[in-house]
Amino acid sequence: MSTETQPIIPSPEFVEDFIKQLTFNDDGLIPAIAQQHDTGEVLMMAWMNETSIRETLSNYRVCYWSRSRQSLWRKGESSGQVQMLKAFRVDCDADTLLLEVDQTGPACHTGRRTCFYRVVEGSTLKTDSEPLIDPSTLYGK
Amino acid sequence: MSTETQPIIPSPEFVEDFIKQLTFNDDGLIPAIAQQHDTGEVLMMAWMNETSIRETLSNYRVCYWSRSRQSLWRKGESSGQVQMLKAFRVDCDADTLLLEVDQTGPACHTGRRTCFYRVVEGSTLKTDSEPLIDPSTLYGK
Repeated sequence: MSTETQPIIPSPEFVEDFIKQLTFNDDGLIPAIAQQHDTGEVLMMAWMNETSIRETLSNYRVCYWSRSRQSLWRKGESSGQVQMLKAFRVDCDADTLLLEVDQTGPACHTGRRTCFYRVVEGSTLKTDSEPLIDPSTLYGK
Repeated sequence: MSTETQPIIPSPEFVEDFIKQLTFNDDGLIPAIAQQHDTGEVLMMAWMNETSIRETLSNYRVCYWSRSRQSLWRKGESSGQVQMLKAFRVDCDADTLLLEVDQTGPACHTGRRTCFYRVVEGSTLKTDSEPLIDPSTLYGK
């Protein structure tokens, strides 16, 4: 059992007021960067809509909006690789979110810890991390 | 004088091929996250177009596309707070960039190190970092 301090869930009134301060794009979405809270690794970037923000702030388990599936994307729901929210940040222009998270296992659908595993090195695009888990087993349940 | 290894500038052919692999939005833009290379701080998120990617990879000084000004935004050109590129990463879907940078001073127009200085704490939105530089002096030249 964890002895960590539990987050204080914000009131629904605060969440609605907070959402009103955000700038969403024409599709009603706002980009959200996920960063591992203790190591600083940037894991992924995804999108949130109002509903996914409400859900994330209600239970501190990260929920995005999937643009490809056009549905709520409860991170880890099918793979088990959940993201627990540690801190919910917003930038100066209120048009980008930074989620400090505790990521179980890989964040990337390729089985890698981070989605940013390709880097320009001279005139090559190098892959510099390998899968933690065989991706064929990630969604095989 | 720095004794650091200088980056190997990619060839124009590689850059054109690399750009072809990226997914830009309907405005021809791709989001780029800037992270301080040695501390892991997420500094800001901005947008790049093909031209700004070409320029950034030609001199390793970060250049974005300013959506508000509709022009190239050579980070630090007016404020002096430049971003030197240390590594140029792309995610699994090739629709988000992660730039590992060396940021001089504040990345944020408010004079703060990072744009993500506001955090949800219970039912309040707390500012948890202060300006390094008075913002009124940042663009006062």
